Amino acid sequence: MKFKIKEIKIDAGELTVILNNKDAKDMGVRSLDRVKLITAKKTITAVVELSSSVVKEGHVGVLLKVFEELKTCDTDTVEIMPTERPHSVELIKHKIEGKTLSAEEIREIVVDIAAHNLTDIELTAYVVACQLNGMNLDETTYLTKAMVETGDTIELDRSPVFDFHSIGGAPGNKITLLVVPIVAAAGLLIPKTSSRAISSACGTADIFETIARVSLTKEEIKNITETIGGVIAWGGNVNFAPADDIIIRVEYPLSLDPYSQLIASVMAKKKAVGADFFLLDIPIGPGTKVTETELANKYASDFIEIGRRLDMHVECAITYGGQPIGKHIGPLLEAKEALMCLEGKAPSTSVVEKSVAMAGILLEMGGMHNGKQIARDILDSGKALEKFREILQAQDGNPDLKSEDISPGQYKAEILSSIDGYVISLDNKKLVRIARTAGSPRDKGAGLVFLKKRGEKVDRGESMYEIYADNQHKLDAAVNLTNLIKPYTIEGMIISHVPGRGRATNYSKH
Amino acid sequence: MKFKIKEIKIDAGELTVILNNKDAKDMGVRSLDRVKLITAKKTITAVVELSSSVVKEGHVGVLLKVFEELKTCDTDTVEIMPTERPHSVELIKHKIEGKTLSAEEIREIVVDIAAHNLTDIELTAYVVACQLNGMNLDETTYLTKAMVETGDTIELDRSPVFDFHSIGGAPGNKITLLVVPIVAAAGLLIPKTSSRAISSACGTADIFETIARVSLTKEEIKNITETIGGVIAWGGNVNFAPADDIIIRVEYPLSLDPYSQLIASVMAKKKAVGADFFLLDIPIGPGTKVTETELANKYASDFIEIGRRLDMHVECAITYGGQPIGKHIGPLLEAKEALMCLEGKAPSTSVVEKSVAMAGILLEMGGMHNGKQIARDILDSGKALEKFREILQAQDGNPDLKSEDISPGQYKAEILSSIDGYVISLDNKKLVRIARTAGSPRDKGAGLVFLKKRGEKVDRGESMYEIYADNQHKLDAAVNLTNLIKPYTIEGMIISHVPGRGRATNYSKH
Repeated sequence: MKFKIKEIKIDAGELTVILNNKDAKDMGVRSLDRVKLITAKKTITAVVELSSSVVKEGHVGVLLKVFEELKTCDTDTVEIMPTERPHSVELIKHKIEGKTLSAEEIREIVVDIAAHNLTDIELTAYVVACQLNGMNLDETTYLTKAMVETGDTIELDRSPVFDFHSIGGAPGNKITLLVVPIVAAAGLLIPKTSSRAISSACGTADIFETIARVSLTKEEIKNITETIGGVIAWGGNVNFAPADDIIIRVEYPLSLDPYSQLIASVMAKKKAVGADFFLLDIPIGPGTKVTETELANKYASDFIEIGRRLDMHVECAITYGGQPIGKHIGPLLEAKEALMCLEGKAPSTSVVEKSVAMAGILLEMGGMHNGKQIARDILDSGKALEKFREILQAQDGNPDLKSEDISPGQYKAEILSSIDGYVISLDNKKLVRIARTAGSPRDKGAGLVFLKKRGEKVDRGESMYEIYADNQHKLDAAVNLTNLIKPYTIEGMIISHVPGRGRATNYSKH
Repeated sequence: MKFKIKEIKIDAGELTVILNNKDAKDMGVRSLDRVKLITAKKTITAVVELSSSVVKEGHVGVLLKVFEELKTCDTDTVEIMPTERPHSVELIKHKIEGKTLSAEEIREIVVDIAAHNLTDIELTAYVVACQLNGMNLDETTYLTKAMVETGDTIELDRSPVFDFHSIGGAPGNKITLLVVPIVAAAGLLIPKTSSRAISSACGTADIFETIARVSLTKEEIKNITETIGGVIAWGGNVNFAPADDIIIRVEYPLSLDPYSQLIASVMAKKKAVGADFFLLDIPIGPGTKVTETELANKYASDFIEIGRRLDMHVECAITYGGQPIGKHIGPLLEAKEALMCLEGKAPSTSVVEKSVAMAGILLEMGGMHNGKQIARDILDSGKALEKFREILQAQDGNPDLKSEDISPGQYKAEILSSIDGYVISLDNKKLVRIARTAGSPRDKGAGLVFLKKRGEKVDRGESMYEIYADNQHKLDAAVNLTNLIKPYTIEGMIISHVPGRGRATNYSKH
């Protein structure tokens, strides 16, 4: 049947068209079935949704991704035929059944994901099956390769190329904003792409976009790296391992990230920029993605092995992530703290120490001796700040930006301690929930500032932390949540008080 | 923020609204996030999709299910606020993590499913997690109860109430059209609700709707059963265990049906009509849902145990389903064959024998002796046909309908044998794929007629089976598929021919 094309500006995840109920019935097509759209120039497979009002009979409603494909065809009509679902859905079922997939089978799934050929239902089945049944190292290697091959890649004009990545879970981990300028200032190439937050409070791309343009093209990433040595780009704007960004659409609402998918996703993005040397930061501790040393070691050895199979030299650093890194979380707040560290005005030592240590390992992977000292010298000398300003300028930021120019959200609440004591712990997951409730990462000014961290003394009535938000309603919601879930544990100074009659230990949760 | 309501006639699975990109950004809301819609009369939670053209700024596009909720509120504007995803999503994650869920937790998930509060992604995660991690008998019982409680129920004016159900996988299993009139003619109450095909070629509702109205209200189901003794209704039209119908939306595209979900779904629909005695048919054999006797026995004992916990007497019949039941598959073709059996013109004995055996067990559960003989007498005497005509009439069908009045699709292909031999097997799954490709169950005339079944002799050039379709394109596709996957295996009469030099066994697949 021939249909008249009607553009509908909704960006559904998969390739979707809307048919009038009556036309669909005539064709024997149901909601979520596949159809082929045939023009003289190309054939596109799309998923069907039904409507009785959005499109008239004889018309087909074409959503954004399909419209982009069709508009190159110089036609306002299209032939539509029912077709079967992709074979990759059968392969996803094999993974549900616990089977091991071959290189070709994994490639078939990834090709369909990258081409937006799978529905949310099918993608979710894939993710949950990988979460539960896993993939072995062979499968993970195939997955990585397929993810690289189905996307763009860049090749810098010289080598070697360096890169690094932190596995998530440690809030406030803004070290990329220090590591990249330090490494670049040392003369190495580091084309760093970062992600936005999935389930965390804030990703590096969320942070850096508050002060620079992170939506760079692959040519810009190549050119800026070749010129300046480093770049801090949002990975989602380029087509590196695009399957990953599509999978994230279903991982995000479930806060799921299967083991094999995590490895393949990181490795594919590094391979796509041509990394020869890659340092992986694995923060461990309560509330991080990797809570146990044993699992961290497994990740480390699997990353290293898959690196070997991909001709990439991988090293891993297992770091402490049991409480937030530094004192700020949230997009603007983290940009501010990173800049303070580069300016030599660090509000605490943890961001600086971690950044210098990581940059140091990278420098040593690049053949330098005493990398950590070199990294520290680069930071202390102001060369890292200078390189950061070059990167800012190359990415359309203000190169004269100072940390005091950056202000968080205008709605603020202070959370006070109700007792005297020492801070025993800050609960990462609870803090992330509070920051997200306050609006982070979408509301750029939202976030938390920790006035007290683990081990510090706090007096009754003293501020433990501040919550910032861009609007009152979200601030209220975050304050309500903090009262409910109490992310701080304070141990009273009086550990045990033995009066005339026995009494419980004076121990209170905040 | 206040929004003007715009109705959009798309029937998405979950409660969905469409916001203009700019409004969503202002509110910090992303695609697939939740919002609350607040009117003076009620508050509804919905999932957000974004568009730049379907709705203008300040307007909210309201899809069918939400519009039905809102239209009772006598307002054309609504207040919208971001809100968190339902807690049941966390509980689904617990199931992904392999945890056992409590009665209250399962109820929370089912309540959200029934209220259309979960997205396709979340529903799929639930189904795949249940498929892989399973539910124990306690959880399955809680699930069944929650599914009953979140839907409508009926109570007949007298008891006991009888019911039966076949687990899927045996194509052509049209016995409901015989069992219900036989049991009702014997004076028992049998308010039978049936489903449409999910992954099979054709469900009982697909069959019976070709000759009667199956979309009955619960009052009609009650009244017809009380008056006539039996009814054959589509379960999807009534609100019995509605969570099940919502889950099917994601099970169908994946052809998944988790063990616990299958039990709960069947038991909940039986409990909802107040069944006191329930007979379950478990067809086994290659290509059925339950292929092994061991699994059939496990299903049987679990169904019986859950029946015990729900005060329902359950018996199970494990039957042979390794090839299609009877000679026809497809909606009109199965209606025709069932009517032929009732008229005493059965094209083969298998439909009659199975129906009489199943009805016989139900009669014995009802206290009759020699149930099978009574069932056969009712069929042979024409009383079952008479009762069937009463049911037809009560459901707005033509009570004078004769089997010869029912014609399948006008496009037909005969599939011939290329050798002489005996039919070794008919592959259920392949036959289902062919029937579905021909258009079944949506195209009512589509289906297959088996001229030869297992064990029968077929000559070279003789018809083995016929494919029917309602249009040429689907017939061609089905014929192409049959040539590719060859659902019949014919063993050549010459089992082994030993000529002067060794030669391979003359064995050919059709």
